[in-house]
Amino acid sequence: MNAGLLMESASAQARLIASQALLPANLLREQLEAIAKENPRLNAFVDVIATAAPSDSGRPSPLAGTTFAVKDNMDVRGLPSHSGLRALHAQACTEDAPVVARLKAAGLVCLGKLNMHAMALGATNHNADFGNCYNPHRPTHTPGGSSGGSGAAVAAGLCGVALGTDTMGSVRVPASYCGVVGFKPGFDELPVDGVMPLCRLLDHVGVLARSVEDVIHAFAILSEHGQPAALHANGGRVFAFAANAAEMGADPEVVAAYEGGLEQLRRAGFELRPVQVPGNLLTRVRRAGLLLSEAELHNTLAPVLAHRRAEVPEDLLAMVDYAAARSATDLARSLTIAVQAGQWLTRTIAPFDGLLLPTTPQTAFPMDGPVPSNQADFTALANMSGAPAISLPLPVAAGRLPVGLQMIGRRGADFELLDAALRAEDALREPGASSDQA
Amino acid sequence: MNAGLLMESASAQARLIASQALLPANLLREQLEAIAKENPRLNAFVDVIATAAPSDSGRPSPLAGTTFAVKDNMDVRGLPSHSGLRALHAQACTEDAPVVARLKAAGLVCLGKLNMHAMALGATNHNADFGNCYNPHRPTHTPGGSSGGSGAAVAAGLCGVALGTDTMGSVRVPASYCGVVGFKPGFDELPVDGVMPLCRLLDHVGVLARSVEDVIHAFAILSEHGQPAALHANGGRVFAFAANAAEMGADPEVVAAYEGGLEQLRRAGFELRPVQVPGNLLTRVRRAGLLLSEAELHNTLAPVLAHRRAEVPEDLLAMVDYAAARSATDLARSLTIAVQAGQWLTRTIAPFDGLLLPTTPQTAFPMDGPVPSNQADFTALANMSGAPAISLPLPVAAGRLPVGLQMIGRRGADFELLDAALRAEDALREPGASSDQA
Repeated sequence: MNAGLLMESASAQARLIASQALLPANLLREQLEAIAKENPRLNAFVDVIATAAPSDSGRPSPLAGTTFAVKDNMDVRGLPSHSGLRALHAQACTEDAPVVARLKAAGLVCLGKLNMHAMALGATNHNADFGNCYNPHRPTHTPGGSSGGSGAAVAAGLCGVALGTDTMGSVRVPASYCGVVGFKPGFDELPVDGVMPLCRLLDHVGVLARSVEDVIHAFAILSEHGQPAALHANGGRVFAFAANAAEMGADPEVVAAYEGGLEQLRRAGFELRPVQVPGNLLTRVRRAGLLLSEAELHNTLAPVLAHRRAEVPEDLLAMVDYAAARSATDLARSLTIAVQAGQWLTRTIAPFDGLLLPTTPQTAFPMDGPVPSNQADFTALANMSGAPAISLPLPVAAGRLPVGLQMIGRRGADFELLDAALRAEDALREPGASSDQA
Repeated sequence: MNAGLLMESASAQARLIASQALLPANLLREQLEAIAKENPRLNAFVDVIATAAPSDSGRPSPLAGTTFAVKDNMDVRGLPSHSGLRALHAQACTEDAPVVARLKAAGLVCLGKLNMHAMALGATNHNADFGNCYNPHRPTHTPGGSSGGSGAAVAAGLCGVALGTDTMGSVRVPASYCGVVGFKPGFDELPVDGVMPLCRLLDHVGVLARSVEDVIHAFAILSEHGQPAALHANGGRVFAFAANAAEMGADPEVVAAYEGGLEQLRRAGFELRPVQVPGNLLTRVRRAGLLLSEAELHNTLAPVLAHRRAEVPEDLLAMVDYAAARSATDLARSLTIAVQAGQWLTRTIAPFDGLLLPTTPQTAFPMDGPVPSNQADFTALANMSGAPAISLPLPVAAGRLPVGLQMIGRRGADFELLDAALRAEDALREPGASSDQA
């Protein structure tokens, strides 16, 4: 098996295909072999389409001939959408979700469905029904969640790009822990039809990939906006950055990688201006987002709770039951906090091209250890305003776990953010970056 | 008194001032005289700044020297913000809300505070504490609400422009009933600091005026975006229109004026494409928006409900008590409906420059008669997606009550919508328009 090829970006694989140096059928065979070899250890895939065949009818696209896989809360024709919960008793879907259909139409081949935290409510990808998913960088550790399978599969080269969903950070957290790129577009930029809802106010479909270029190509396909004419063209480089990452709750290891990354960006010509992110805002936002999610999920699961309550894992049950015992005015209070946090973010970003902060307060942790409560504290903000946000891997010393840099852009300016992310990715690859930190 | 001058647009008044054909002090004196004469009948103002003096320090602006007045739920330094409810026991404010400060800084003079439906939760401007506000076109009828004083004052020439708030239609409904222009910008385009909240997810500050040009100038000042370089420049003219207005619940009189207006737009070069607006969607959206508003208002009024419950009007009490007896999952259901309706609107508008529909199902009705439940059915949609929306007066036969045309734009494209509205306003002024209808 050519592990080098599978760890290339999907864009690079597609270029080999376009130049006829690689046959799509050979890439596909190698992907399926890699899944067969690695998945027993990682448990990233919950359903593999072993009969997948190269597309012969897709229109040309910069990712044609490469592969993708889909978080198990999005519909793929012929497969059930379990959403990480067997109690749903999901049946095979008769239609592709539009986001899946669009990738297929662009010549990408679907490899199957990816593991996730049950109902997308949780960030570790512990999963009682489908088994835990593990981190390719350290297979005793969490890949993050809820799109844990998406992060693990992309990081291990088991697919080209992966689709995930992000309600409080569920694309960016696993991207950060697994050392890949994770992009949550602006609210409503991608259709959520055929996607299991968690909290519709905050839900986004997103993309995980091994390069920003892959994300740009995938987002252009998924949004049907078409490829922007020129990249590196008009994305600005004046960013605010959270100057109080430690006070916000980031671990020293994360702060060191983050500060090293900021220095690399400055050297590459980014102008960075310090802002303070109120730490108590983050905790309030997390709790508000949780209650909004739990209450809506109680409604979504109503038939399951009525008829198959015993099959629902206890931790999930505890969360939705908690919400059901709250009042409308309790939930209104959470909604107020969510909206005000979104307005704070919009106002804070307005004078800049975006805001930089670590993606997560910590790196991946042991699957059998305690779970930090603040995993989504740095990511949930962007869901409150609907701003686009991306996580990029920061340089870390050899053997250290991945750390993510989060870039939040202005709502309505997704491609401008992606353009800036492309430059940031270049800057973070400059030699010497990884030796800057403790 | 020069009634002709006061019925001119604020922009026209400002041009007279700029050319020194009119002294700001004379305009101000005439405004105060008109208020003294007309307000006893209309009850549009609840607080008049009798000592108002022309600004001598404002920076030049296209509205410098003209006047404005403020819905009584926004802070003006030195005046209390009653929000239409005496039980608040409001004290004089020490600061202007940013939107008020920005108009003052642009050389506009504040004339005082305007009547409103109590706490902005209702669309008739019945008001037990401050007295009902009446419609200048028929002083036994409602001016609409909740920004009823704003609609009445602008329509009667008692101020240049007026500020209002719009959570489900509270700027556009009174604009429609009073025959003036009412603009609700996109979500978060204008700051809501110093504004009494109703439902922060849906709340917007808006502008009522006698011309689209006035709205454009006021919005440029309020948003601090600055004046767009060229109007009539890039606003598109391909609009979807609701082809089923009668089935949606519009009265025959409204349908006739609406269809006549559409014909005028077509003649002026607008391309109009029919869409169907699901009638049951509108009812669901109204109920969802109401519960979201009532639940949050219960929290906002908590101190009043605890200590001065007997002073709160019964109808308002019934609404907030209803919400307090609901569960978090009930409210989550309303939130789901609101978000999905916003996504429906965004998707429906996407292929076009915007969507046209009547602003309200009916014209103004007698203040002492029954209140239709569907007053905000056509306006609330735009609050769910945060899209900008404007109501323009349609031509109606002499002696008939005003009817409004609503234009909803794409989120993030406020000036494009205003540009299209400028052209639509021209088209609707073409001779012969008012004779087209029954």
